Amino acid sequence: MTGPNPMSTLGVTMSCKGVSSGKMRNELEVSGNWDHGDPWTLATDEGAFHGGEDSAPPPLALFAAGLTGCFMTQVRAFAKKMRVSVEHISVEAEFEWQAEMHANEPYVASPVGFTLDIEIDSQSSLENLRELIDAAKKGCFLEQTLVRANAIKHRLKVGSGWIDV
Amino acid sequence: MTGPNPMSTLGVTMSCKGVSSGKMRNELEVSGNWDHGDPWTLATDEGAFHGGEDSAPPPLALFAAGLTGCFMTQVRAFAKKMRVSVEHISVEAEFEWQAEMHANEPYVASPVGFTLDIEIDSQSSLENLRELIDAAKKGCFLEQTLVRANAIKHRLKVGSGWIDV
Repeated sequence: MTGPNPMSTLGVTMSCKGVSSGKMRNELEVSGNWDHGDPWTLATDEGAFHGGEDSAPPPLALFAAGLTGCFMTQVRAFAKKMRVSVEHISVEAEFEWQAEMHANEPYVASPVGFTLDIEIDSQSSLENLRELIDAAKKGCFLEQTLVRANAIKHRLKVGSGWIDV
Repeated sequence: MTGPNPMSTLGVTMSCKGVSSGKMRNELEVSGNWDHGDPWTLATDEGAFHGGEDSAPPPLALFAAGLTGCFMTQVRAFAKKMRVSVEHISVEAEFEWQAEMHANEPYVASPVGFTLDIEIDSQSSLENLRELIDAAKKGCFLEQTLVRANAIKHRLKVGSGWIDV
């Protein structure tokens, strides 16, 4: 017997195997924890100024496309659920960081600001669009990751074991 | 005249233009604030269970590849600067989220945990590898974004103007 407002939790995991290939290129194979056929194969590279050969987008381009695409996907997925009209959506997103360099030491990176400018062709009211965007913010896995501080665990293989680093 | 430890700041901006195309597909064009030729063109889609046609990786796959690639790139870039030997690097990363669903309402997403398992072929000492990984964490734009809480600004086009949403 379920109550009037049953709650369920869905776990979503992405696994990524990356290997270095060219000067700065990485080959990346990504799988989700659901039945989706072959892993997705992606690559990153850098321009010559960063020692690379420009053979693939830089990692930050994948991030920018991933976050923008995630938000747009949730708007469209939730539009159906919330019965809000979305004929077409376009987003112009800007992601700004800075790197601080002291003399010749490795630089230290930090985020500066993130903006999503959204255009929606819709027959629905502004109030309904606001509700839809609010739901998409809350349902977007990547936006919800960015708005809180996350711990990232790193382990290094040493011999046949792993140590925390 | 510069002091003994001159500091400089470099600004890095990625701009992404996304438009909806197929059922759940998005076309994404990304540019950086430096001279790199054509924008990088990427796409996202979803599987049939999420209303898509599986014509491109899901947004979370781009994110996973971007973060893994960013960290790997900084390890290799800083290895040269810090004179640490890195013959080859591979990383197995896992990104875990959950979505909470109450009845038929739009779900609410949250991050659960992120892990990077790193293997480096190196002639250098463990101490040098630890220092290198520490520098890569601090220099990785995406890791430094994830470890703090970020505000994301959203604006919606209404008529010929923009409103905060």
